[in-house]
Amino acid sequence: MLCDDALHPLLEEIMKRTDRIGAMIKILSDTPGKMFPLSYFCDLFHAAKSSISEDIAIAARMISEQELGRITTTPGTGGGVKYVPFPSDRQCLEIQQELCDRLSDPSRILGGGFLYTSDIMFDPHFVPKMASVFARNFAQSEAHCVTTVETKGIPLAMAVAGFLDIPVVIVRRESKISEGPTLSINYFSGSTGKMQKMSMAKKAVAGCKQGSKAIVIDDFMRAGGSLKGIAELLEEFHIRVCNIGVAISYAEPEIKKVSDYISLVQLVSVDETERKISVEPSLHLRPCSKQIL
Amino acid sequence: MLCDDALHPLLEEIMKRTDRIGAMIKILSDTPGKMFPLSYFCDLFHAAKSSISEDIAIAARMISEQELGRITTTPGTGGGVKYVPFPSDRQCLEIQQELCDRLSDPSRILGGGFLYTSDIMFDPHFVPKMASVFARNFAQSEAHCVTTVETKGIPLAMAVAGFLDIPVVIVRRESKISEGPTLSINYFSGSTGKMQKMSMAKKAVAGCKQGSKAIVIDDFMRAGGSLKGIAELLEEFHIRVCNIGVAISYAEPEIKKVSDYISLVQLVSVDETERKISVEPSLHLRPCSKQIL
Repeated sequence: MLCDDALHPLLEEIMKRTDRIGAMIKILSDTPGKMFPLSYFCDLFHAAKSSISEDIAIAARMISEQELGRITTTPGTGGGVKYVPFPSDRQCLEIQQELCDRLSDPSRILGGGFLYTSDIMFDPHFVPKMASVFARNFAQSEAHCVTTVETKGIPLAMAVAGFLDIPVVIVRRESKISEGPTLSINYFSGSTGKMQKMSMAKKAVAGCKQGSKAIVIDDFMRAGGSLKGIAELLEEFHIRVCNIGVAISYAEPEIKKVSDYISLVQLVSVDETERKISVEPSLHLRPCSKQIL
Repeated sequence: MLCDDALHPLLEEIMKRTDRIGAMIKILSDTPGKMFPLSYFCDLFHAAKSSISEDIAIAARMISEQELGRITTTPGTGGGVKYVPFPSDRQCLEIQQELCDRLSDPSRILGGGFLYTSDIMFDPHFVPKMASVFARNFAQSEAHCVTTVETKGIPLAMAVAGFLDIPVVIVRRESKISEGPTLSINYFSGSTGKMQKMSMAKKAVAGCKQGSKAIVIDDFMRAGGSLKGIAELLEEFHIRVCNIGVAISYAEPEIKKVSDYISLVQLVSVDETERKISVEPSLHLRPCSKQIL
């Protein structure tokens, strides 16, 4: 097909470009949020900076056109190129809708208004989708870490942190010997109706300076007691909560113990008698996400 | 540069190919282990099956040449194309060495032979690297799920499961109301020197048939009490452990309660007086991985 000898050098150049762009997309999206200097790719592909810049422009256009995220470049020293997931409004709504559909299955009903959700919160391919919505909304937060309290919020927190290239700080229910010195608080949990304890290892926040900011992620929120507990615990280390993201928020109680949270879906009601679950995409996601661009 | 009009249609075709290959690599590597029928990409790119097949061949060659994993195709009905991470022997050793280097920091010493490792086990970009070594070794296991006991093994288990496209089943320390009916066992933990409890939700394994197989992943193993406990708990549900992978295994005690495990690194000794940690890459990783090709 490609038989004309005169074409050969040009075609070879283009083939090399295809290889470089494919590899570049793979490397960038394997470590989202991480800034790679252009020289990294120049060295890797033995290519000139001008070629790499053109490659990046092509990759960025394609990734954006296909709604697969964003490749952005920052000029100057300390600059470079990075990939961030950036679900479109339509994709966010699809993810929210998928979560609603999965949650609506009446076999999830456990009693006491609880739903079985572990299969969703530990679904290795769906968790990054949910996380991408938070990563889009919190991309400008300049947070230093993502915090969650064990256990079911851990995968979501890991995925959000991975997309933003920041560490995860886990709050434990009990202080463990393997955590070293910890700071603990007691708080009232509305879900269980009793006092609970949570603790954070001093070593976990050793890298955070005073005035650092944290994104708090959890799988669900009823009244927000746990989230408020996490915020208080972080305050003890002089870390401020800048964003809160939960997968599922309960409609009741209407007044929460924390404000300015984002949830993917709102659980309106669980009717144990009729075996009916009412859950809908949270509406405040979209107006909020508009400010981010 | 590309000024000759006669070249235009051919070049345009090649440019489209670059776009398709870039997008294909992104989509495949976003959901590793998941088989995509060729028709998925034909529809997405409005391209003929022959073009898509050529694209896949180019992408597969490039990904393999750059040591970025593997793109494999399965012919026939139910077949398709999928991406799996496949670190080379050299890359595996680099990951093991990086883990050794990070673990060797004397500020990790907590007393009682314990090391602080939460920053490593919750590092969102390093965890997938460690997981890729297990995914390579366990790719042929045909396991139905990955199991771990909360808390520090969860990110690693999630990443392994993501690479193999199978669900994660979490063993809890305490049975929670949000888990529904659970089955619990007591076991002796060598690390804490006391009896501990672990429980598994019946719903978590509802999708597993009798005779299903599980990969067990954990952050560390001393004598293997927890891992043996997990195996016993799975047995209650007629699920058999086919592989065990731990990030860090302690050299002592030499006799473990489980056999046929793979560890990334071996912790030889922690000298609290001299503040010296001795840790080395586990040697049995390499001969074992040789069998996998």
